[in-house]
Amino acid sequence: MCLNMALELYMDLLSAPCRAVYIFSKKHDIRFNFQFVDLLKGHHHSKEYIDINPLRKLPSLKDGKFILSESVAILYYLCRKYSAPLHWYPPDLHTRARVEEFMAWQHTAFQLPMKKIVWLKVSRITSGAWGQGHKGPMAANYNVFLNSSKLAEWRMRVELNIGAGLFKEAHDRLMQLANWDVSTLDPMVKENISELLNKSK
Amino acid sequence: MCLNMALELYMDLLSAPCRAVYIFSKKHDIRFNFQFVDLLKGHHHSKEYIDINPLRKLPSLKDGKFILSESVAILYYLCRKYSAPLHWYPPDLHTRARVEEFMAWQHTAFQLPMKKIVWLKVSRITSGAWGQGHKGPMAANYNVFLNSSKLAEWRMRVELNIGAGLFKEAHDRLMQLANWDVSTLDPMVKENISELLNKSK
Repeated sequence: MCLNMALELYMDLLSAPCRAVYIFSKKHDIRFNFQFVDLLKGHHHSKEYIDINPLRKLPSLKDGKFILSESVAILYYLCRKYSAPLHWYPPDLHTRARVEEFMAWQHTAFQLPMKKIVWLKVSRITSGAWGQGHKGPMAANYNVFLNSSKLAEWRMRVELNIGAGLFKEAHDRLMQLANWDVSTLDPMVKENISELLNKSK
Repeated sequence: MCLNMALELYMDLLSAPCRAVYIFSKKHDIRFNFQFVDLLKGHHHSKEYIDINPLRKLPSLKDGKFILSESVAILYYLCRKYSAPLHWYPPDLHTRARVEEFMAWQHTAFQLPMKKIVWLKVSRITSGAWGQGHKGPMAANYNVFLNSSKLAEWRMRVELNIGAGLFKEAHDRLMQLANWDVSTLDPMVKENISELLNKSK
């Protein structure tokens, strides 16, 4: 009989911070229950999820009675609890600081703009449906890797290191966005996207 | 003869992340040289500062040859290097995760909107000077503590814990903003503020 309660991870792999947590867990054979919180159906606004995270943000972790949000904190937690290899979060003063600097930086400099790009992609697909017509260069089928060989190399390195299978698995939902049924978009989510896109103009 | 090279901290106390680093260092008697980078004069765009931080963000730390940016990473670094009392960054798995969750959360949920409030305040003072007239409820002499007793209590607790003298010292530049000479505002800074305020509408 297994007395260990499995870890619960609340995620939608459309979200880059969720993918980071997912890939890290899978890569280290951490057993968890994938609690799918569908962002496009607004399930992050459901009463059940607000009990987990009142800020309605993904991902969240539940480990027994302990609940944790913020992907950066979740990654450090998993690192410690499951004793991930030291190169992920090296004990050396300077190298650890460099990891923490990157983790803080990517949060504002990288994830927030990327979130806008994803929603711009959603709005492109759905612009006919809600008649806002957010269009422009960023709303096209934007591929950041086409315009920078450095970024393309980095992407290759990441794929190589985590393995092509896991890489594909983690990005599958994002890739399927083009075939997605617009009519299932939650009205509150629709409104939030409009607001975000108007701000980003 | 003292062989220890002093720590260099590049800051402007108008910035809340800079104030956090300043207060933490002072509170723990960490010796440092205060390298003042005047945000209002655009000194963060100077060649000298770009050599320190190409992203032109404050604060930055220089410890010998080691340069570090991102206030969260700097605070962890100071904590470790100067062995701050354990309650700042407790070793317990769950409590440490809670600190890391807060540090990640405040970055996006708190600092970014507060930055806008400060610039709205600047723009209120200077609106006549560049004729944009950004006015509105937030541009008034906004005091978040007046509208929430919980926030006011928290502020009192912080002031009590760090000491009234240090608290005043850290906030002095912010408080002096009302008396500030508009004509010294750097044109690039002015443009950046306008852009930020337009986004926040």
